[in-house]
Amino acid sequence: MLSAETRIRTRYADTDQMQIVHHAKYFEYFEVARIDLLHQIGLSYFEMERNNYLLPLIECFCNFIKPARFDEVLRIETRLQKNLGPILHLTYKVFNDETNELIAEGFTKHSFVKKDTMKPIRPPQFYLEAIHNSANK
Amino acid sequence: MLSAETRIRTRYADTDQMQIVHHAKYFEYFEVARIDLLHQIGLSYFEMERNNYLLPLIECFCNFIKPARFDEVLRIETRLQKNLGPILHLTYKVFNDETNELIAEGFTKHSFVKKDTMKPIRPPQFYLEAIHNSANK
Amino acid sequence: MLSAETRIRTRYADTDQMQIVHHAKYFEYFEVARIDLLHQIGLSYFEMERNNYLLPLIECFCNFIKPARFDEVLRIETRLQKNLGPILHLTYKVFNDETNELIAEGFTKHSFVKKDTMKPIRPPQFYLEAIHNSANK
Amino acid sequence: MLSAETRIRTRYADTDQMQIVHHAKYFEYFEVARIDLLHQIGLSYFEMERNNYLLPLIECFCNFIKPARFDEVLRIETRLQKNLGPILHLTYKVFNDETNELIAEGFTKHSFVKKDTMKPIRPPQFYLEAIHNSANK
Repeated sequence: MLSAETRIRTRYADTDQMQIVHHAKYFEYFEVARIDLLHQIGLSYFEMERNNYLLPLIECFCNFIKPARFDEVLRIETRLQKNLGPILHLTYKVFNDETNELIAEGFTKHSFVKKDTMKPIRPPQFYLEAIHNSANK
Repeated sequence: MLSAETRIRTRYADTDQMQIVHHAKYFEYFEVARIDLLHQIGLSYFEMERNNYLLPLIECFCNFIKPARFDEVLRIETRLQKNLGPILHLTYKVFNDETNELIAEGFTKHSFVKKDTMKPIRPPQFYLEAIHNSANK
Repeated sequence: MLSAETRIRTRYADTDQMQIVHHAKYFEYFEVARIDLLHQIGLSYFEMERNNYLLPLIECFCNFIKPARFDEVLRIETRLQKNLGPILHLTYKVFNDETNELIAEGFTKHSFVKKDTMKPIRPPQFYLEAIHNSANK
Repeated sequence: MLSAETRIRTRYADTDQMQIVHHAKYFEYFEVARIDLLHQIGLSYFEMERNNYLLPLIECFCNFIKPARFDEVLRIETRLQKNLGPILHLTYKVFNDETNELIAEGFTKHSFVKKDTMKPIRPPQFYLEAIHNSANK
């Protein structure tokens, strides 16, 4: 199972008047974590888009366990549930990096699409190879 | 079942370089829609917070069916699954208001908490009365 | 002088833990107001981009006079300082629509660019005609 | 003159459909950079707020020189124009950290306020001491 760790310091602008990090921000954090994981298996999301592949969300979910506050370092553990089928399924656990408390957990599901048609396609060859190579390390 | 309709025009800042509305924005739209629904049953979220009650998220989910683009009017149909227990469960359907195409659907779950303790509590009396009065209309 | 009025209700997600609208949000409000003004003189920003013209910012400024809070209706008065030269100069005044208090004022400056080159160009003919037609009304 | 350097990797969610970083995001980057600078002179913004001091914006400005794109590392050079009077004046230069190209430059002006009254006050003693100590290093 492919995994990555990402650390993000919460920003002032991430908070709302409840004085905690706004729930929608977690999906931005998941996105940063997901792009990190792709980097680690040799895939640049930037390059993928230049080559006409997009990876839009089909579904996302988050369970909020404890509030995160301004100026905390969150550690996000991301896993790519190894799936060579058409749907990529990633899971995320968010910890307070100092206390190790679990803050939130969630998932996102994605499908490759071609930029020009926005139609779902099967995972492209470069992706399957990157997965394959990482699994063999 | 209590429900409300909310219309939101997508903003330029809501888009990302995929040239569609960024997925995290849907949770901001759900929030606007949820506050509208509370208004319609006579509850001001603004007043609730002044009275020391918060309604943070426990869970949220969204299924993205078609992309929304800049300068579209989205119609959000929000329902409060009538639940007098400790968890509020709201569901949302997002339509392109012009074409009536279903764009996305999702849910959020919330628990009342007291601002000073951030501990979950049972729904306060003013909420139960507002629900009761709306149901009898 | 071309002008427009736009009303925006502040969202919960727009606030930060200072319990006021976060300053960066005003530039999103200015953007909504600016696109409204263009609509009123018959220009669709959506169409402009399809025709390969972009209108990125060169400069922006805001002076914050009073804080805006959650669930307030702001009225934004936008003016296009009539300028047929290469730089579009817009000014914005933000009022609390209920109390008429001045909340903030600012400006943005823009240059037309071609999407493919991102190079500044002189205002295109369709823009000059729209300005001319509006001025003669 | 007190200064600090902050590095920020641009996020996918920071882009808009112009495929560049949205202009309002720069003010979030400035905020991160400003909080870094305060940390470096021994001031925790988190602690300041707990002690009932806020530092809201009075004015902000940005000049956009070159577009920033997704997944770039920006280096922000922040300076506190040493001012012991009631207005804090910070300036920011944003560089592409790889190419050293100047991307943007701007400023923010702030006034200390007491959280309970939201009235401007003169800089508190702990701030003046932190400035004084940094200047003597």
